[in-house]
Amino acid sequence: MKLATLHDGSRDGTLVVVRRDGAIYIPVPRIARTLQEALDRWDQVEPALQDVYARLNGGELQGAPVDAANLMSPLPRAYEWVDGSAYITHVVLVRKARNAEPPPTLETDPLVYQGGSGVFLSPRQDIVLHDEAWGLDYEAELCVVLGDTPLGTTADTAAPHIKLLMLCNDVTLRNLIPTELQKGFGFFQGKPATAFSPFAVTPDELGDAWRDGRVHLHMKSTLNGERAGDVHAGPEMHFSFFDLVQHICKTRDFTAGTILGSGTIANEDPATGSSCLSEMRMREIIATGQAQTRYMKAGDVIRIEMQDADGNDIFGVIEQRVVAAG
Amino acid sequence: MKLATLHDGSRDGTLVVVRRDGAIYIPVPRIARTLQEALDRWDQVEPALQDVYARLNGGELQGAPVDAANLMSPLPRAYEWVDGSAYITHVVLVRKARNAEPPPTLETDPLVYQGGSGVFLSPRQDIVLHDEAWGLDYEAELCVVLGDTPLGTTADTAAPHIKLLMLCNDVTLRNLIPTELQKGFGFFQGKPATAFSPFAVTPDELGDAWRDGRVHLHMKSTLNGERAGDVHAGPEMHFSFFDLVQHICKTRDFTAGTILGSGTIANEDPATGSSCLSEMRMREIIATGQAQTRYMKAGDVIRIEMQDADGNDIFGVIEQRVVAAG
Repeated sequence: MKLATLHDGSRDGTLVVVRRDGAIYIPVPRIARTLQEALDRWDQVEPALQDVYARLNGGELQGAPVDAANLMSPLPRAYEWVDGSAYITHVVLVRKARNAEPPPTLETDPLVYQGGSGVFLSPRQDIVLHDEAWGLDYEAELCVVLGDTPLGTTADTAAPHIKLLMLCNDVTLRNLIPTELQKGFGFFQGKPATAFSPFAVTPDELGDAWRDGRVHLHMKSTLNGERAGDVHAGPEMHFSFFDLVQHICKTRDFTAGTILGSGTIANEDPATGSSCLSEMRMREIIATGQAQTRYMKAGDVIRIEMQDADGNDIFGVIEQRVVAAG
Repeated sequence: MKLATLHDGSRDGTLVVVRRDGAIYIPVPRIARTLQEALDRWDQVEPALQDVYARLNGGELQGAPVDAANLMSPLPRAYEWVDGSAYITHVVLVRKARNAEPPPTLETDPLVYQGGSGVFLSPRQDIVLHDEAWGLDYEAELCVVLGDTPLGTTADTAAPHIKLLMLCNDVTLRNLIPTELQKGFGFFQGKPATAFSPFAVTPDELGDAWRDGRVHLHMKSTLNGERAGDVHAGPEMHFSFFDLVQHICKTRDFTAGTILGSGTIANEDPATGSSCLSEMRMREIIATGQAQTRYMKAGDVIRIEMQDADGNDIFGVIEQRVVAAG
């Protein structure tokens, strides 16, 4: 099932069910007004939403054409946005880029940070750049939306708590991060608003590609029309989403609608490209002693998407232009 | 004005207006069902809420008796919980306790961390201790609830964005923090669910005690019936709430209902006591070479409250018992 949130002038938008091909949507006001409302009573509403989805795909229900510009992030704001860093290659390269060592527990203890979740960008919303010196970067990631997930949930018991999957662009201000991390409290100013894909999809929508808490498909990033990354999201995800759930649930409970991210999707093989600029720059430095790639400037456009094995789009496209602050 | 949230079996509870003396409440379903809903359209609803408050205080409206056990945190879940560390004495002592140096920018660049905001404890809810070795500590803090607060808000323009004030107990698992901070991504497992005071109050409720973005009153902490801290929250708040707002708004917007905390309230003078156990332990180590105070165990009760200059309770009382996990 594919779900989306229509811009209607309100903070949380209108929940809609989207046809499998992403072209047609239908609102479901009698089932739930917003995606958060649906997640808050997911067990009750999911069958009704799936029924609408089946009838929309079957042509029994008529909908309206999807206008990507009119979609918000599926959750325009969320109660938690927890982002992991599950791809070891990304951790190693980005730390090298800022002359920092990866932690000694790199392969045994997942890295996660708590992100700001009160204001998300829409999938086609401009990224406003206030200072070029901040070093604006994108990060193409996968994420899951959890239902209520109690303290003590383990990797073995995590699967049923994962209700939806999305893509995201975890926008990062690279040059603000080193001094921020030196202070010891993690990221804050270095992580401005994140954008999510137009569609949030149930795990069954991915078929066999969703297994072992990983998505076995390629994350495609396109910068100004040129391929930047075509990175396999599956085998090199060192900590699966199940592992990440176990990690975050060690000492607290999570409410329905919590978003949990994979971190930047990265492969060891440089031929697959990168899902962020920082990795590209580090690889250039390793190869030639100097970074050629610059961080983003006004006018740059980043496009993030994922297709199934048959080449069909799954999540809709994140496509964001950088604009200078007015 | 004093507001509270009544437990009604739902996730977000029922918004109620509370009489100034904290004894009587009245629901306001025709104005707003929940506190988040009120904050989402604060400019429209605040006059109506203030009118109910005036009539409740004047005896024109009859309410029902407040039962503290039946109140949730005013926002049982929030879109963001950002906690500062604005009292330099706390930063210095706690870092000393874990053999870490305070950051060189201690006095010029505020420390804040992004906390989990999807599940808050109620003001009288037990703190479940899963492992005594985690080093359970309380932290008595003040916090503000923001209305919509845009990127670029400065200390000079922050005041009108502060809609409400509360107390909180920022529960901390001290022994999980050192290894967590070594990983460089800030706190996560070391910060389980936070509890807030029964009442959220508008700044005018504090009269002259609210000035310069600080609360000039004493934070009282009582551990197992004995005074633990009677700490002045005003003069030694190095970064005011206005400064903290400016800091967090450098690179992003905040939605209505964002909670921003002061960090543990601490004075240089040890005679005022402490608002957390870690500071006490560090002071003992400095004085005698060894900590006598232990972290919390099952059966311990922490009480956190603040009174006005006339000795009247303002926020209601946070009173939480530690219980061992079943």
